[in-house]
Amino acid sequence: MTRFLTPLAASLPATVPFTGPETLERQQGRPFRARLGANESLFGPSPKARAAMQEAVAGVWMYADPEGHDLKAALAAHHGVTPAHLVLGGGIDGLLGLLCRLTLEPGTPVVTSLGAYPTFAFHVAGYGGALHRVPYSGDHEDPQALLDSARQTGARLIYLANPDNPMGSHHRAAVIEEMVANLPDHSLLVLDEAYADLAPDGTIPRIDPDHPQVIRLRTFSKGYGMAGARVGYAIARPELARAFDKVRDHFGMGRVAQIGALAALQDQDWLAEVRARIITARARVARITQANGLRPLPSATNFVTVDCGRDGDHARVILRETVARGVFIRMPAVAPLDRCIRISLGDDAALDVLEEVLPEAVAAAG
Amino acid sequence: MTRFLTPLAASLPATVPFTGPETLERQQGRPFRARLGANESLFGPSPKARAAMQEAVAGVWMYADPEGHDLKAALAAHHGVTPAHLVLGGGIDGLLGLLCRLTLEPGTPVVTSLGAYPTFAFHVAGYGGALHRVPYSGDHEDPQALLDSARQTGARLIYLANPDNPMGSHHRAAVIEEMVANLPDHSLLVLDEAYADLAPDGTIPRIDPDHPQVIRLRTFSKGYGMAGARVGYAIARPELARAFDKVRDHFGMGRVAQIGALAALQDQDWLAEVRARIITARARVARITQANGLRPLPSATNFVTVDCGRDGDHARVILRETVARGVFIRMPAVAPLDRCIRISLGDDAALDVLEEVLPEAVAAAG
Repeated sequence: MTRFLTPLAASLPATVPFTGPETLERQQGRPFRARLGANESLFGPSPKARAAMQEAVAGVWMYADPEGHDLKAALAAHHGVTPAHLVLGGGIDGLLGLLCRLTLEPGTPVVTSLGAYPTFAFHVAGYGGALHRVPYSGDHEDPQALLDSARQTGARLIYLANPDNPMGSHHRAAVIEEMVANLPDHSLLVLDEAYADLAPDGTIPRIDPDHPQVIRLRTFSKGYGMAGARVGYAIARPELARAFDKVRDHFGMGRVAQIGALAALQDQDWLAEVRARIITARARVARITQANGLRPLPSATNFVTVDCGRDGDHARVILRETVARGVFIRMPAVAPLDRCIRISLGDDAALDVLEEVLPEAVAAAG
Repeated sequence: MTRFLTPLAASLPATVPFTGPETLERQQGRPFRARLGANESLFGPSPKARAAMQEAVAGVWMYADPEGHDLKAALAAHHGVTPAHLVLGGGIDGLLGLLCRLTLEPGTPVVTSLGAYPTFAFHVAGYGGALHRVPYSGDHEDPQALLDSARQTGARLIYLANPDNPMGSHHRAAVIEEMVANLPDHSLLVLDEAYADLAPDGTIPRIDPDHPQVIRLRTFSKGYGMAGARVGYAIARPELARAFDKVRDHFGMGRVAQIGALAALQDQDWLAEVRARIITARARVARITQANGLRPLPSATNFVTVDCGRDGDHARVILRETVARGVFIRMPAVAPLDRCIRISLGDDAALDVLEEVLPEAVAAAG
């Protein structure tokens, strides 16, 4: 502790939302054989984006355009909005942090689901927000429960991911549209669509981009395969989007990243190819896990969440034994979701390793 | 305005610390012929760093190591500290933002110099800090005036850049060491050493890395030529360094950037080469500006601040006329520093353009 911290900062725990795979590798003294834990895209970015980034490295001596003009223009055209509806940021994580900063004071109520994305909870806690959690309904986030809790607590933010992480489930567009129609006046819906690019048709709701109570979050980390570039964006009413300019780090986006994201967006054929590979990989992970007596849940994402059939302790042992055998996976943090492990979808080489290792891990778990 | 903002967020102006050159290019409808305004390094990064980044692009589907283990280990060895003394962040800008978040509440007093780095003031304002500004002493920041003001206001933070931006001046190490020895108990010295890699020998103070009242900030944006990569770091007592983990975006650093920074650090020969080129370029900019009746100030940085000999209005006209002729430069924002323009040091091609354009700009200014 140092005497210079604010009381809020001093009160925060030193916990982090996730441990990185590199930390585990250092602990184990060897690299993972398959990296299937962080929902990264083993299929990688578009070859065109990769080429654009390699070329852009020569210009890394320059700061990126702080207005992100070209990328915003392309995103605006892609989504049928205006550049004024867009905010660029350091992935959805970075945007969630800025949003919490803009909207939360100590004690401001916020609603999320019990077991939903930890980084959102990390940022809410970081600004002193009062986080209320409602249970999942089965393997789905529960829009009605979120709305009810928001009404009851007076929540300023309601967080929902669709498709959902860590369960991989999704709601149909109409369900989200119904939720938007029933938002209490005092609530802003934070709609995390990190996995939207990979979801089945009919998942993405139609929402007026000028809706005063919704902010949608998208990323180049998942379908576009650029997690290490740190490019996300928000779609919101211009009044809200503009507020980010008051607090964001204007020159904070990487130049190579910004150029790469533009090239990735312009290669929708690659995204379609990734979607196809993911569908194939989903089926293979389903077969691998079923062959080991586990139950894969339906996935609308680039990972498959797998019910291990007992409680959290059992799933944690399977996870530990899998990780110890060189396959990096993760699992939901809280019951009852923690009866599951979560396996990111990989290429054939990675899934070969999973297929080899999982029987041993399950056997070790007894 | 939207109803979801905190009172603090709602009260913040929409101003930005700097307008990017791309914005000016769009306004002018053509690219700059020479980019000499943002103190970027036209000499670029180490060829080895460039190669490392190009190779790293293939792995951009992975998040970066959130602990930055390898880069921290190398930096620790380089500076003779431990990894626990280091914080990695999105440039010094990003680290200043996090530091303000950790230490400032609305009304917390902070001291800086009138005309010093605007992004620090932006972050202080963004967290509601009460910023007190003391005048420069001539072309130097004034350590004694900063200390006096800190005592008087009870400042929690004292910001000083050594070497200084925007004036390019520097204090000898002993001056800073004396300042550190006289810090009031309630103050943390924020020592911005962005230009340290380019400063004359004898500029960098010896400060115990465990000193409880100093945090030093460094960057790969200037001497190392990687402004677009967004890699900075802080050196501080482990207790303070650890506090950043409570609030930082753990997966926020770019993977290509982190790998590139490590390679850049390991190529100190390139940094020496850049230092040599900068010394040559300083002399040339001095000649060019003197030939136009202007007075270049001594520089300890990769830019030369040039006294235009009259008031801010006059310097602003010279700036405007220079920019209009395709040479991007900037200038200090407030009197009396704003009698100057600030020219980043470039390669021969860029300085050729400056040499061609400056006489016309000065003539147009009358």
